[in-house]
Amino acid sequence: MENFFYFDLLATYQNARAGIFHTPHGDFETPIFAPVGTQASVKAMTPQQVEQTGAQLILANTYHLYLRPGDQLIAELGGLHQFMNWQHPILTDSGGFQIFSLASTRKITEDGVVFQSHIDGSSHFLTPEKSIEIQENLGADIIMAFDECAEPYDREYNKNAISRTHRWLQRCIDHKKRSDQALFGIVQGGIHLDLRIKSASLVAEKNLPGNAIGGLSVGETKDEMHKVLEEVHKILPIDKPRYLMGVGTPIDIINGVLRGVDMFDCVLPTRLARHKTAMTLYKNLNLSNAKYARDENPINNMCTCYTCQHYSKAYIRHLIQAKEMLAATLLSIHNIHMLIQFTKDIRTSIINGDFGEFARNFFSNLNQETHNF
Amino acid sequence: MENFFYFDLLATYQNARAGIFHTPHGDFETPIFAPVGTQASVKAMTPQQVEQTGAQLILANTYHLYLRPGDQLIAELGGLHQFMNWQHPILTDSGGFQIFSLASTRKITEDGVVFQSHIDGSSHFLTPEKSIEIQENLGADIIMAFDECAEPYDREYNKNAISRTHRWLQRCIDHKKRSDQALFGIVQGGIHLDLRIKSASLVAEKNLPGNAIGGLSVGETKDEMHKVLEEVHKILPIDKPRYLMGVGTPIDIINGVLRGVDMFDCVLPTRLARHKTAMTLYKNLNLSNAKYARDENPINNMCTCYTCQHYSKAYIRHLIQAKEMLAATLLSIHNIHMLIQFTKDIRTSIINGDFGEFARNFFSNLNQETHNF
Repeated sequence: MENFFYFDLLATYQNARAGIFHTPHGDFETPIFAPVGTQASVKAMTPQQVEQTGAQLILANTYHLYLRPGDQLIAELGGLHQFMNWQHPILTDSGGFQIFSLASTRKITEDGVVFQSHIDGSSHFLTPEKSIEIQENLGADIIMAFDECAEPYDREYNKNAISRTHRWLQRCIDHKKRSDQALFGIVQGGIHLDLRIKSASLVAEKNLPGNAIGGLSVGETKDEMHKVLEEVHKILPIDKPRYLMGVGTPIDIINGVLRGVDMFDCVLPTRLARHKTAMTLYKNLNLSNAKYARDENPINNMCTCYTCQHYSKAYIRHLIQAKEMLAATLLSIHNIHMLIQFTKDIRTSIINGDFGEFARNFFSNLNQETHNF
Repeated sequence: MENFFYFDLLATYQNARAGIFHTPHGDFETPIFAPVGTQASVKAMTPQQVEQTGAQLILANTYHLYLRPGDQLIAELGGLHQFMNWQHPILTDSGGFQIFSLASTRKITEDGVVFQSHIDGSSHFLTPEKSIEIQENLGADIIMAFDECAEPYDREYNKNAISRTHRWLQRCIDHKKRSDQALFGIVQGGIHLDLRIKSASLVAEKNLPGNAIGGLSVGETKDEMHKVLEEVHKILPIDKPRYLMGVGTPIDIINGVLRGVDMFDCVLPTRLARHKTAMTLYKNLNLSNAKYARDENPINNMCTCYTCQHYSKAYIRHLIQAKEMLAATLLSIHNIHMLIQFTKDIRTSIINGDFGEFARNFFSNLNQETHNF
């Protein structure tokens, strides 16, 4: 495993870090934003288009692919990289989060979780061992430990949940067979700093090639999220990448980087795209708005994405009004490119030693935009 | 106009022809299949993807674009090429066919047609002059005369319709102002050979840069279609391209070429793609079928399209089952590429003098496939 996966920390600026993570399908540069291909497809985009946004890592969801088309089918067809034609690094989650957010009638025991499929209501039993087997069938470069994502405020529940999550982590480590996949552990504990500290310590002890912070951006305040990140930062090993799961607005990304996070993923850019919305650094634009009907400018004059290089807001609005699928494609390309370019700019400023100024500018522009809005 | 538009007839094989048509946005080679971008978008594809299929000409629909977003808006934004980012030749139809197939409560007079929008029920009046004005606003390289597409069997109705269509053609010619657009006339007359002959003679007299055959593939038999093409072929000028409107199955394309047709268009490849169907030369495959669930082969092993180069039938079936938009994109790429490659192969065989053998092989394989089916 050590041959395949290692993290080069190239530069730091206070708690912010710039690095390179090495995987069997190539390197990726951190901080990184990873687009999500839930069902082995980044929605409305070909892998070629995903590549052109500058993406170096994508996510796929174990829960969805286990249910459909099935992880064994994907293994038979050569694994996820081959199946979906993405030759760069892939990360799969454990299925845990989706069971807690999508499936119905779930029942948690020490052994695992019984749940019913959101597709056809069929009953399934997922355990740490089963999650690892599924993820080994899928064949992503980075796989995640099976965890329990609890409601963030219930202290007693979170206390039990982190204990179970850490027993499950050990079972994942024990069951894992493939050496060409990096297993990341997940820090849980809701908004409770003492629980987060305990969870981070337990995860850090395992000395895994990377570590994740789960259960954030699920209803807590920004301030609560930041405090958790600050505490966890002090504990997780400095020489391993830290992945903040499911987070991906510009403001959350920069706040994460300021608190030592290296990796981000989120369905937001593609989901907003399907809901007619273009992301910019400081605000989102609903392009179905009539005021864009004759707007000959691109979403962002400075943006170098395929969409902004070739299309006016008026054209994209027309596609939205005419219910053309191309609207979702062009907006997905822009939104993903925007977030990736933002993380690349952050990375460059960390390496150049001016991330402090970069961040101050960002927050100053953000406040101004919020005032002008 | 003569500077912009001319047709080089490079080779013939019996009635079949291979040529090049020159337009202000570049040349296209005939026989040609043109994908349809009804609402200024070839559905589910970027222009880059359309280009990669080998497309040299696309269609857009005047009726749809007049209603939404409006031809004046497109003119303000630099015309259709700029608006939709397609820098190669474009052809717009006249709006006539869509009024007769999509709009409701239409009323035809000598002056024009009153109809109600299929979008919002609003009332509109389209005349030959208005159709030309709209098409001049859109700015396609090839524009079509405003015609009446009648039910093919009613002889009396067709007799009146072709007279009116030819008076309308003269009004289109008289009203046309832009010299960088080629106006094509349209032969009508249903299945009635004497009416088709009369219509073709009247259209031919106008000496336009190209001529179209309308009102076919609308319910008549193949035999009736072929007889019409054979009669019209004898009359339309040999040195101008002939465009068979709305036709685009492999069998109709080769039968058209055998009867002197140079240009084809059809929504079929993109419509079938959105209905889970892959086209091959001899049959269509419904990829939602369970028998493809584990099929690791591409749609066609010999096909050089992006889809067949990178994806298994199993993956495309998964996308269909998972309701991923990428299914429509990958199938549209394949279906359009297939038809374009077919017309290119026909063209090569005409130039090489072996189109007779090419056609015999095609029909022999077709019969065999039909037997094996």
